[in-house]
Amino acid sequence: MSINSFGRILRVTTWGESHGPAIGCVVDGVPAHLTLSEDYIQTFLDQRKPGTHRFVTQRREDDKVRILSGVLNNTSTGMPISLLIENKDTKSSDYQNLEKTFRPGHADYTYWKKYGIRDHRGGGRSSARETACRVAAGAIARQILKPLITIQAALVQIGNRPIKREHFQWSECLKNPFWCPDPSTVPLWQEDIDKARHNLSSLGAIIEVVAKGVPPGLGAPVYGKLDADLAAAFMGINAVKAVEIGAGFQAASLDGHTMSGEILLDEHNQPLFSSPHSGGILGGISNGQDITLRFAVKPTSSIPQPIKTITSELEKTTLATKGRHDPCVGIRAVPIAEAMMALVLADHLILARAHNAEIPKTS
Amino acid sequence: MSINSFGRILRVTTWGESHGPAIGCVVDGVPAHLTLSEDYIQTFLDQRKPGTHRFVTQRREDDKVRILSGVLNNTSTGMPISLLIENKDTKSSDYQNLEKTFRPGHADYTYWKKYGIRDHRGGGRSSARETACRVAAGAIARQILKPLITIQAALVQIGNRPIKREHFQWSECLKNPFWCPDPSTVPLWQEDIDKARHNLSSLGAIIEVVAKGVPPGLGAPVYGKLDADLAAAFMGINAVKAVEIGAGFQAASLDGHTMSGEILLDEHNQPLFSSPHSGGILGGISNGQDITLRFAVKPTSSIPQPIKTITSELEKTTLATKGRHDPCVGIRAVPIAEAMMALVLADHLILARAHNAEIPKTS
Amino acid sequence: MSINSFGRILRVTTWGESHGPAIGCVVDGVPAHLTLSEDYIQTFLDQRKPGTHRFVTQRREDDKVRILSGVLNNTSTGMPISLLIENKDTKSSDYQNLEKTFRPGHADYTYWKKYGIRDHRGGGRSSARETACRVAAGAIARQILKPLITIQAALVQIGNRPIKREHFQWSECLKNPFWCPDPSTVPLWQEDIDKARHNLSSLGAIIEVVAKGVPPGLGAPVYGKLDADLAAAFMGINAVKAVEIGAGFQAASLDGHTMSGEILLDEHNQPLFSSPHSGGILGGISNGQDITLRFAVKPTSSIPQPIKTITSELEKTTLATKGRHDPCVGIRAVPIAEAMMALVLADHLILARAHNAEIPKTS
Amino acid sequence: MSINSFGRILRVTTWGESHGPAIGCVVDGVPAHLTLSEDYIQTFLDQRKPGTHRFVTQRREDDKVRILSGVLNNTSTGMPISLLIENKDTKSSDYQNLEKTFRPGHADYTYWKKYGIRDHRGGGRSSARETACRVAAGAIARQILKPLITIQAALVQIGNRPIKREHFQWSECLKNPFWCPDPSTVPLWQEDIDKARHNLSSLGAIIEVVAKGVPPGLGAPVYGKLDADLAAAFMGINAVKAVEIGAGFQAASLDGHTMSGEILLDEHNQPLFSSPHSGGILGGISNGQDITLRFAVKPTSSIPQPIKTITSELEKTTLATKGRHDPCVGIRAVPIAEAMMALVLADHLILARAHNAEIPKTS
Repeated sequence: MSINSFGRILRVTTWGESHGPAIGCVVDGVPAHLTLSEDYIQTFLDQRKPGTHRFVTQRREDDKVRILSGVLNNTSTGMPISLLIENKDTKSSDYQNLEKTFRPGHADYTYWKKYGIRDHRGGGRSSARETACRVAAGAIARQILKPLITIQAALVQIGNRPIKREHFQWSECLKNPFWCPDPSTVPLWQEDIDKARHNLSSLGAIIEVVAKGVPPGLGAPVYGKLDADLAAAFMGINAVKAVEIGAGFQAASLDGHTMSGEILLDEHNQPLFSSPHSGGILGGISNGQDITLRFAVKPTSSIPQPIKTITSELEKTTLATKGRHDPCVGIRAVPIAEAMMALVLADHLILARAHNAEIPKTS
Repeated sequence: MSINSFGRILRVTTWGESHGPAIGCVVDGVPAHLTLSEDYIQTFLDQRKPGTHRFVTQRREDDKVRILSGVLNNTSTGMPISLLIENKDTKSSDYQNLEKTFRPGHADYTYWKKYGIRDHRGGGRSSARETACRVAAGAIARQILKPLITIQAALVQIGNRPIKREHFQWSECLKNPFWCPDPSTVPLWQEDIDKARHNLSSLGAIIEVVAKGVPPGLGAPVYGKLDADLAAAFMGINAVKAVEIGAGFQAASLDGHTMSGEILLDEHNQPLFSSPHSGGILGGISNGQDITLRFAVKPTSSIPQPIKTITSELEKTTLATKGRHDPCVGIRAVPIAEAMMALVLADHLILARAHNAEIPKTS
Repeated sequence: MSINSFGRILRVTTWGESHGPAIGCVVDGVPAHLTLSEDYIQTFLDQRKPGTHRFVTQRREDDKVRILSGVLNNTSTGMPISLLIENKDTKSSDYQNLEKTFRPGHADYTYWKKYGIRDHRGGGRSSARETACRVAAGAIARQILKPLITIQAALVQIGNRPIKREHFQWSECLKNPFWCPDPSTVPLWQEDIDKARHNLSSLGAIIEVVAKGVPPGLGAPVYGKLDADLAAAFMGINAVKAVEIGAGFQAASLDGHTMSGEILLDEHNQPLFSSPHSGGILGGISNGQDITLRFAVKPTSSIPQPIKTITSELEKTTLATKGRHDPCVGIRAVPIAEAMMALVLADHLILARAHNAEIPKTS
Repeated sequence: MSINSFGRILRVTTWGESHGPAIGCVVDGVPAHLTLSEDYIQTFLDQRKPGTHRFVTQRREDDKVRILSGVLNNTSTGMPISLLIENKDTKSSDYQNLEKTFRPGHADYTYWKKYGIRDHRGGGRSSARETACRVAAGAIARQILKPLITIQAALVQIGNRPIKREHFQWSECLKNPFWCPDPSTVPLWQEDIDKARHNLSSLGAIIEVVAKGVPPGLGAPVYGKLDADLAAAFMGINAVKAVEIGAGFQAASLDGHTMSGEILLDEHNQPLFSSPHSGGILGGISNGQDITLRFAVKPTSSIPQPIKTITSELEKTTLATKGRHDPCVGIRAVPIAEAMMALVLADHLILARAHNAEIPKTS
């Protein structure tokens, strides 16, 4: 079984391997009348694309997106939108030694065990290259959310070094190659990454995502909870091992009163939740506060130091991964995080309209 | 929109409110020929049921389950299995003051905002009483997994006090009211809970779940990843704010080599992963290691100390929750955790058989 | 694999066997604020229930429905609605000879072959008794459609005797036991059925369903077409072998101009389609005309004359079905037809609102 | 809402407009290890492609298919297979007069009413050009069914002229441009079509599809019935107004004994159903007989004679459709019918394996 679609009513189906001729996606359920163009989507792809600075993989892909359907005169028609991105800078020769050798930490063994066959070139389908499609689809989702909801993500920890929370400035994120909201941490992370490279190793990261302007009422009781759908969406990003919402794991250590807080009234006589710890979701449904989410990305599994492993013939071997890899794959997860948040919220926004005429029409 | 089903091919649909006449579920997609009886399912419900000791709510429910369909002569027929549990010890009078008042930390405001109506009696549909159905369905799922896969869960932290890892013994969990695997921590938790009660507050918790015997090959690439489905299943349990698999958030701080480890060969010449940090899942697919997962439960939102809140008429008021509540709702999440793990794995086990004849037949 | 749910966003899950303790369903996705009561749903169940006159099975079931969830003070809350109907007049002894013998024309062999086990008592899960749940769920769906859309069905052929089209009067349907819109045909059908009974045989039927007031815009392009969803819903009713919409099979014989007709403007300057042959659906989407559908029900497979068949041990045997059976099961399909039409339209009405604020709000 | 996927576990998502740059599909859930190539799929596309003889549209499309993912060394990898077909011979100028004018019988009005926008060029998304994707996906499905199940379709009626049943020869279908199994009817149909053209009109058709070798046990009880899924798949083909299985509408006129027949034992002591009228499906599950299905295609809606219609400004106008159209669109539905049958059966074959190890492994 292979499952390559997600979303309940806004459905994204992605396809393509890292070293195949192209990758792409079909975004179905997009409302008509959105303004959409290749240039607009490209803006977001350019944020994710590899090879732009020395802290990411040196594979150079233009990641030029083509819209093949569903858009007429820069306007969505309500029909499925097919997006295509060609693969250009593939160096499959880098991967020849992987045809029968499993990289620990990668999906090599599990794909082979499940399917009895795998495309070893550049990780095939399990490559993070697939996330370009998520970013492109996320750009469409943002148009569904606009102007109601805005989404931002930031890298808040690399390795064991977190940012200094008191320096947090969203505006800083676009000023450095790390999406770091704290300028004082940037030079330290540069050193950390250089050191990891020198040690032929790699680093993990923690990313934080915030959605502002989410109206109350998105989500569903019991099994279509907004937080459950977000958890699946983020845990499903390559290399992610943990997801938390609001206080997250810290919630275990808070006392009940601190966690729940109070409901006050703001200056417009609207509900005001005094505690931020719910992360904007109560009982699986948005409460109108900012939605806050954090997730952890493991250190890049492809590292150049020699490690013991086995082949598909179950023979021992040693492998030093070649190829061009991100020293900290978490850095490039930032635009992906924004895209996944946009996609889940847009899906629930459309769903919510089905039953509730009060949900603002955004597009 | 209301979404009350989950699972891809093994589908559970639950229904019922805390103070309605009954709660129940329909479990569809259960293979034929499983041995199933009311007594068998009852064993698991008895583990979750309230009122059994002083550290949980004093609501007394027998939680007697009836099988209404899908089982003939203690054998599943492949048809949908309908389970029904009557509500008996409802004290809706305890909740009269909640008809128009929102409890902070609960789903009161969000349900009302989404639906314009809510069943305020005992939390209605958002009550954790719904989880009895998950436990009952989970008992069926275990029969699908048997004898291949076994599942256990333990409480590893209450409030800010974790267990001592070096004392961890699975066999201890059933010997104390906390599912605590470390006997030295039990008396300390008793004190902590008594203190929280005295302070009219409540405590959060962290639970750990382990599945042993999972064959490699469960899960799916990209959007039906086993870890993504687990993340949704656990984040969707009432009061859960965080989920992590394997090293989880700690993965951010590990270096690449420690995280990935090596692949060796065991004494049967089978793959042996040296690192436990993946938690048994690589690229969304099980690798044959134990699957390990942790999640955090926030402190019970219903606390007896007076807190400021508002009514559905947007008027300020003060509320001290009455009713019978768990001082640490995380305690009762342990059997629910085992059930959710069983349901997700059984679903993927059946799915995996569709494409891969090598997946062992368990039932 | 067992699939017991249908609907895209309004989801009905049914369960129960003909001779089990009860049958029932869970209806999920019902909007809040509908007026609903057991008495209201009962009205529709009473139209379908057996034993009311001599032309249907003499099994006597009150078919008393209980609402177990999702309704508070006769108002839907948006939560899943669980309905339960007890089985009372089961005579499983009538079916003892069927434990190992397959009735030709029934699902006995196919269920046994698929599951290796079947509940032979009264047809188990494959019994048309399941349709009581559809009628109950359909009653809920009608409240979603009200006051916009009204649905009526009529029996237009029994055996090889069609009604006289020129006598068609909807108001006649409730005046005779056959839902026959043509009073002149009623006595002839009585004779036909008596004759079939005398011959130890049974008769088939054709039913016509019409939905009035359907707004344009329900349905979806390509794979969620309104007519495709209707075709599945009706072909999925027990014993149905054919479904047609508008001109149906006759469309093959029409010339293009007669089929398509013209689009004129009515007295309110609104589009008026001159041809009825599309049956109200063009390109999978409703066009505002009446939706018209016909389907054929095969003659009851349970007939009292001895027929050759085999056992599950693959031995030859002879079987004369005992038990209480409908001589023409098509008669009782009329209320089921109305229910299925209501369910499909309500599902698409809610779906349509998600993307199109112009869809009138009905509830 | 736009729904462009179908299938339960073998999922096909199509995209693309008639006059956009390309059309295509993603086929997800395809088992690994199937032999697949562009040449193989092309064989089936060539059967459907336009412009090959004078009885079909003169639009000339090579319909060259490219495989963009999911296939490595002519072998499926289990990953989603993306197929792309470029549109080359588009004459959008033929459609300029349709930008604001609705063609009766087409989806023009309904798409516009639902979405408020439509791609008028060549019918946009509602064009039968989309069916090229079905044929391509169907070619993949056939490899899943091979060598167990074979599928064939034939045209059995054009206009009001059916074939002579006693002349039926499958081998004749490929020898004439009509897929006609009766050579004596071929010259009569030629005359009929020429006459319709002369009259500036068009003709409908009836197609019959047969699947041989279907093992018993495909399908599901109640709502995933094989016949219900087939009904949706066929009613969802462009211009189809009716679907019947086995005896179909004729079942209404048969007596119970003739319909059901008997179950005998064949020379291998295996069940032998004496009646063909069930069409190979009982209770929604295949019984091992041939599956037989018929469907009706309405006459082409695009006809060159002037007809009255309206514009999107609700003004009256007259329209004589230009462009290159099939005089009898049913002719080209034959390869589509085979594809849809293959897709539904492959989906259910894979599903059946999930629960039943006895289902033969085909690939």
